Amino acid sequence: MARLAENHYGKSRVRLLKVMRNGDQHELREWTVGVHLKGDFERCFTDGNNAGIMATDTMKNTVYSVARDSTALTMEQYAQDLARLLTQRNPQVKHVRVTVEEKMWVRLKADGEQHGSAFRQRGPDVATSDLSYTPGGAEVVKSGVKGLVILKTSQSSFTGFKRDAWTTLPETADRLFGTEATIVWTYGSPIEDYAATRTRLMESLLATFARHDSLSVQHTLFAMADEALALEPRVSEIVLTMPNRHNLLVDLSPFGQDNPNEIFVPTDEPHGHIEARVVR
Amino acid sequence: MARLAENHYGKSRVRLLKVMRNGDQHELREWTVGVHLKGDFERCFTDGNNAGIMATDTMKNTVYSVARDSTALTMEQYAQDLARLLTQRNPQVKHVRVTVEEKMWVRLKADGEQHGSAFRQRGPDVATSDLSYTPGGAEVVKSGVKGLVILKTSQSSFTGFKRDAWTTLPETADRLFGTEATIVWTYGSPIEDYAATRTRLMESLLATFARHDSLSVQHTLFAMADEALALEPRVSEIVLTMPNRHNLLVDLSPFGQDNPNEIFVPTDEPHGHIEARVVR
Amino acid sequence: MARLAENHYGKSRVRLLKVMRNGDQHELREWTVGVHLKGDFERCFTDGNNAGIMATDTMKNTVYSVARDSTALTMEQYAQDLARLLTQRNPQVKHVRVTVEEKMWVRLKADGEQHGSAFRQRGPDVATSDLSYTPGGAEVVKSGVKGLVILKTSQSSFTGFKRDAWTTLPETADRLFGTEATIVWTYGSPIEDYAATRTRLMESLLATFARHDSLSVQHTLFAMADEALALEPRVSEIVLTMPNRHNLLVDLSPFGQDNPNEIFVPTDEPHGHIEARVVR
Amino acid sequence: MARLAENHYGKSRVRLLKVMRNGDQHELREWTVGVHLKGDFERCFTDGNNAGIMATDTMKNTVYSVARDSTALTMEQYAQDLARLLTQRNPQVKHVRVTVEEKMWVRLKADGEQHGSAFRQRGPDVATSDLSYTPGGAEVVKSGVKGLVILKTSQSSFTGFKRDAWTTLPETADRLFGTEATIVWTYGSPIEDYAATRTRLMESLLATFARHDSLSVQHTLFAMADEALALEPRVSEIVLTMPNRHNLLVDLSPFGQDNPNEIFVPTDEPHGHIEARVVR
Repeated sequence: MARLAENHYGKSRVRLLKVMRNGDQHELREWTVGVHLKGDFERCFTDGNNAGIMATDTMKNTVYSVARDSTALTMEQYAQDLARLLTQRNPQVKHVRVTVEEKMWVRLKADGEQHGSAFRQRGPDVATSDLSYTPGGAEVVKSGVKGLVILKTSQSSFTGFKRDAWTTLPETADRLFGTEATIVWTYGSPIEDYAATRTRLMESLLATFARHDSLSVQHTLFAMADEALALEPRVSEIVLTMPNRHNLLVDLSPFGQDNPNEIFVPTDEPHGHIEARVVR
Repeated sequence: MARLAENHYGKSRVRLLKVMRNGDQHELREWTVGVHLKGDFERCFTDGNNAGIMATDTMKNTVYSVARDSTALTMEQYAQDLARLLTQRNPQVKHVRVTVEEKMWVRLKADGEQHGSAFRQRGPDVATSDLSYTPGGAEVVKSGVKGLVILKTSQSSFTGFKRDAWTTLPETADRLFGTEATIVWTYGSPIEDYAATRTRLMESLLATFARHDSLSVQHTLFAMADEALALEPRVSEIVLTMPNRHNLLVDLSPFGQDNPNEIFVPTDEPHGHIEARVVR
Repeated sequence: MARLAENHYGKSRVRLLKVMRNGDQHELREWTVGVHLKGDFERCFTDGNNAGIMATDTMKNTVYSVARDSTALTMEQYAQDLARLLTQRNPQVKHVRVTVEEKMWVRLKADGEQHGSAFRQRGPDVATSDLSYTPGGAEVVKSGVKGLVILKTSQSSFTGFKRDAWTTLPETADRLFGTEATIVWTYGSPIEDYAATRTRLMESLLATFARHDSLSVQHTLFAMADEALALEPRVSEIVLTMPNRHNLLVDLSPFGQDNPNEIFVPTDEPHGHIEARVVR
Repeated sequence: MARLAENHYGKSRVRLLKVMRNGDQHELREWTVGVHLKGDFERCFTDGNNAGIMATDTMKNTVYSVARDSTALTMEQYAQDLARLLTQRNPQVKHVRVTVEEKMWVRLKADGEQHGSAFRQRGPDVATSDLSYTPGGAEVVKSGVKGLVILKTSQSSFTGFKRDAWTTLPETADRLFGTEATIVWTYGSPIEDYAATRTRLMESLLATFARHDSLSVQHTLFAMADEALALEPRVSEIVLTMPNRHNLLVDLSPFGQDNPNEIFVPTDEPHGHIEARVVR
């Protein structure tokens, strides 16, 4: 006899563009919102009883409606407004998770100045947030970034690793170190200045990546986490996922050429995968 | 002071094509392998000490080497061979996870017969497996499918759901029900006949989807799980993720036409997201 | 002084799912339609005068409206119905191109029988069509396929090619030959039985690929075209694009293993690109 | 009897990363190169005679080898070096086309300064070039950009278009105008300062997009071309492809809210497609 052990449902990829018009100076936010509920939904699965089901279409409508009323300037604060409204009117919901991804837009220049209402998308990275909200209980806010493609061409080695019969990789004192990082940090408590904190943390993470004398991906990952936690006491933990996007040195010797770490083949697969959660 | 709470590392997207040549009748397997290790790797992060690190390049080499020696005909069994070899020679590894995805190839026809050595890829779904292996301890095998795009055009309704001020969705007794399903089942113990069991389970899952009088996505998801668990006693649990890929009925009334559930717009976003874990 | 040399405009990626309900036996068509117009639109560009502009939103509406009224069972015939209606009411349009891609759906099985109203998408290839229509003038219909992933594991060699100082590829008498083919054939005149002709041509193309003793991708490409043109006199030309998706033999000798054409690494990039147009 | 009407072949997606190390100040170029040849290759197709065939693997090797020797700082100049070397040693080649795409990397900051050897990828747009080279004959260089995602939130209207029975789109004096532009300009003759010219042209194109009082996508597209041609006399023509990525105003009235052009749904499909070639 089958039994429902866990379940959740919701709406994914609700896209939303909000234009705030302050005279000639417009502001843009482009968010992709996901809403996922847990609660008292078992009879929907087992008996087809939909009485307690908020339709996912209703969630979508609420995403837009809250976007209109909310004065939030950050996705973290918008997510809190959304989670509260959704749960206030639905006591059968015991937990809501709201994820938001933000595509970044920067102003175009015209006549030597930043234009007030013309923009260019800047990627490939997107900013992320993830709110876990239990009505009457805990609220956990995570922020982060994904698709952050970074590369350093100096201060990266990989030596002293274990060798066995399947090891053909040579040791190297000077290699390229490239990754498409995903980083998520958890706030110990909700805060007010999400945008400013994000800016400071991102600057720290990128500067540590740039400056670090890297002995491995793991080594640099930990250094980045260590600096970020030291910088921002309100962050309780940080998870870094740093796939090792290999750039392979091309063997030019068949053509009578040397290759002093100059010509590489960038590859997407296979790639290393290094991930860690770092706490205080 | 930062502290490493959790970590793992490995190699992702190691692609492998194996051709087994039995005279004119060749067999193909196309696998994408991932290997992820947990163990005693902390000093690599904190001190840059790589002494216990198996390079991810070595894992890649081992993937190919084991593929040559292994007589496994299924990815589930290949993964077991790989996990054992990797951990035998690396006592510092406390846990290994091996994921494999298989792209399906079917034979081409020529002169009215199945050709022995010419193939066509069949998708969009891929078969999946996921082995969790603790040397000297537990071994858990999961199998499944992802990207399974299915659609039913009858026996699907959605009525009786909760309505509030943000609800605009009408009730419907006859809608399209489409999904791109991901399904993962867990074997209570490793078995011998992974291929045959997969075939039987997939037939059951698809037949239940086809036959079910669906009152909601949740309702059909549970029915599929229920039938599958009843069919195969060695499966201890099954997780189904069934996003609701909406097909929107087009309003043709501005053009003086009716639309008796005939012309729809398929959409990718936003989509519903329904997920459950079902056990005995 | 800038001058408009050429222009066209239209609507792309109009998605459409049509369900034809014959009692319990439903039929599905999933089409993605593009409409592109040429004509007398210059003043729109140069002066912002939109008087002759059919809005692309109107094209989209017409796509759906024609889908409802048309009795066409093939995308080729549907495209003709659409092109005629669009141009009849818009004399400023001098030429219309209608492209349609079709995702393939096959019936699910339940209780040992094909189910009448439950389907599974079959890919990765999609069927294509491309209509070029000049009111009062020529009408050219092309049909084809894209994303056709095929592979042969015997009867493929590559020897005798030109060698110079940059040539490191060894000659091989037995290699894998894989491609993701795009094929487009042109009908000399519009015909009635597009579906049956497509089936016959695809069977021929795939059987030739399977049977051919291939001396190069080019060699097999031409043989496939040759057979197809011989089979179907109403086809005036055929264009085949056959990228060479390389499968690289893995060197297992560092691990003391041989590799008798058994273990390969499938790669996406770089890939060869071979393309030809073949006529009678 | 089948006859080869046209053919070309080559190598696509050859990826290349070049690091130029000037002390602590490194420079990066990430290029994806395609090489396509036309010439005297007919017997390869018809008879399997590979005597005149330069293997695509040899092309790949040459791409890397030339990258090492070439002092070119722009992809346009690199492509010329590559085309010359390939054709010098292969008289059977009558025409070569070299396409290069460049992913943009910008320096990271650390300690308030631009770091010399740590970078971040900047997208989503990539720079493009396209060289058409006939040994002893014409050489045509095109440069451009693709994936340029831009959006203006003011000065965009769409009124006065043709209305018929399928037209439901209302006229609007104030809409969002978003596009993912592809732009290609042709140089009348090869030049020396490709990088500086690109910068000037891109600044002009973006500034015109920002400033223009747009009466339609077509209208703004032409204005952008007009300004660019006026700015740079060495550009002989420019092709702009500007799909209209629609942002749909959400109807919030069911929830008792207005929506003064503030909350939109960004969509990918369907989209308008506007394309023109503008010359002097």
